[in-house]
Amino acid sequence: MIQIKLAKNSGFCFGVKRAINLAEQTAKKHGHATTIGPIIHNPQMVEHLNNVGVTVVEDIGLIERGPVIIRSHGISKEMLASLQSKCVEIVDATCPYVSKAHEFAKLAEAGNYKIFILGNAYHPEIIALKSYVSEASLSSDGENISTEGLILPLSRVAIICQTTQNIENLKKLVEQLLPISNELRIFNTICNATNVRQQSSLDLAKKCSLMIVIGGKNSSNTKMLANLCSQVATTRHIEIAEEISDEWFKNLVNPDAIVGLTAGASTPDWIIIDVYNKIKAMVGDTDNLVNSVESIPGYKEEPNA
Amino acid sequence: MIQIKLAKNSGFCFGVKRAINLAEQTAKKHGHATTIGPIIHNPQMVEHLNNVGVTVVEDIGLIERGPVIIRSHGISKEMLASLQSKCVEIVDATCPYVSKAHEFAKLAEAGNYKIFILGNAYHPEIIALKSYVSEASLSSDGENISTEGLILPLSRVAIICQTTQNIENLKKLVEQLLPISNELRIFNTICNATNVRQQSSLDLAKKCSLMIVIGGKNSSNTKMLANLCSQVATTRHIEIAEEISDEWFKNLVNPDAIVGLTAGASTPDWIIIDVYNKIKAMVGDTDNLVNSVESIPGYKEEPNA
Repeated sequence: MIQIKLAKNSGFCFGVKRAINLAEQTAKKHGHATTIGPIIHNPQMVEHLNNVGVTVVEDIGLIERGPVIIRSHGISKEMLASLQSKCVEIVDATCPYVSKAHEFAKLAEAGNYKIFILGNAYHPEIIALKSYVSEASLSSDGENISTEGLILPLSRVAIICQTTQNIENLKKLVEQLLPISNELRIFNTICNATNVRQQSSLDLAKKCSLMIVIGGKNSSNTKMLANLCSQVATTRHIEIAEEISDEWFKNLVNPDAIVGLTAGASTPDWIIIDVYNKIKAMVGDTDNLVNSVESIPGYKEEPNA
Repeated sequence: MIQIKLAKNSGFCFGVKRAINLAEQTAKKHGHATTIGPIIHNPQMVEHLNNVGVTVVEDIGLIERGPVIIRSHGISKEMLASLQSKCVEIVDATCPYVSKAHEFAKLAEAGNYKIFILGNAYHPEIIALKSYVSEASLSSDGENISTEGLILPLSRVAIICQTTQNIENLKKLVEQLLPISNELRIFNTICNATNVRQQSSLDLAKKCSLMIVIGGKNSSNTKMLANLCSQVATTRHIEIAEEISDEWFKNLVNPDAIVGLTAGASTPDWIIIDVYNKIKAMVGDTDNLVNSVESIPGYKEEPNA
């Protein structure tokens, strides 16, 4: 019997999945829920959530009733206070990795550190993070830090990162601050979901006769996944289940062959489930169709952290 | 009138000067004093200290009476306890920068950090530092850190440095630990006395018609100083005052010319004083002879820290 296995950490990252689940559960319980800004920038997902009762507002002033979902990026201290003053039920779906960065920011602030944030000043995650410190210097690429007006060496310096930053930018920032700081405390809050997803997919592909990569044909992270997997296994890149041909499985000479699945960062779970069920049916096994990614062999939600 | 100026931070570093002063003062007060190991590895200085009553022992077990001077490198927690059990007077001449590293070690230990020490395992300073933590990984060059048996990423990592280490080695160590640490707390305990000495000497040389560099002809740090100064001023490298020729000053056409002095890390103050007084006498001013480096214009003991 052909086995089908899902790569660990496929599709949405842990924080986004968690926020979507919380939004769905909340809407189910109350019949409706509101998010401040869309949970992810994926039109199908926004439409799906709307269908189950989750509406989007951009301005807290427009919120008239709860429950209100705080999305995975988090919100600023001031926005949270403003929301709390409305006395509506609040469901905090801030990604735990983002919340951890907020905790580090409070710690650095309390310890009188000179704070540098590696991140994009206009990104909601960084707007929220900044609100937890009285003052911070920002760099989006780790370069050209200004030390004008500062007395060097700095005594205590802290770095906090946007979760989607990359380690190379962090290295550049550290390189500049290390020689001018007596104490440099680096909170490496970079989430390695993308790296982990790539590594898990590659690990699975090595054991597979056929690897199916699910995600937008123009999604750069999905194309990267397909490219990686094709180096170690026959690989098909699809967007939806309908693209699967039963010809692909007839070529599998070994009856115990493994078909691997993985998905890009913007691929909702239901597409992964559709693909799994379609393959199951094609290889002649309709007893084990699933209705959740959790039921697909190999599934693991949370990355190592 | 020709001016004579001493470069800031010339000669012995702040910590060594402080330890020697403490030893001399203690011996003066009590008629004798003991150091555990020589205060610096300079035979003239050891002889001088011996002449004023400071004797050297290598083993705490051999100490029969106080006062005992702890030299600038510091001693281990166990050695300190053993010394305290003897109930003799202890004068702690541990360099304040070294003591700071001990404080950081205690802080890292209390915070359950995985500790990396950048330093030479056999150096007295590192033997002392290590005694303040239950476990530490050591690297003398910042390379080839072993993470075997560790669960990655590490949650809290601290780095503490030998005061005489260099920033390039620290950069190498940080480069390796940054990607595998959630929090990396770098206590940059590198003392920049050498860099500061070079920079101060160069700054002074730029204003001088003649620069005199004092120190062993085979001392690499003194040769480096002489080489640096010669790039911006006429420079003479001498070991002792007797080498100075009055011909050197006759060539100074400007009557307000500045003669600069600087000294390598192993040059005792009295040689600097001799040189200053000899030049003063040669240029015809015997009213302002000095008996301490503190009285030489430009003198500054403590480096910025």
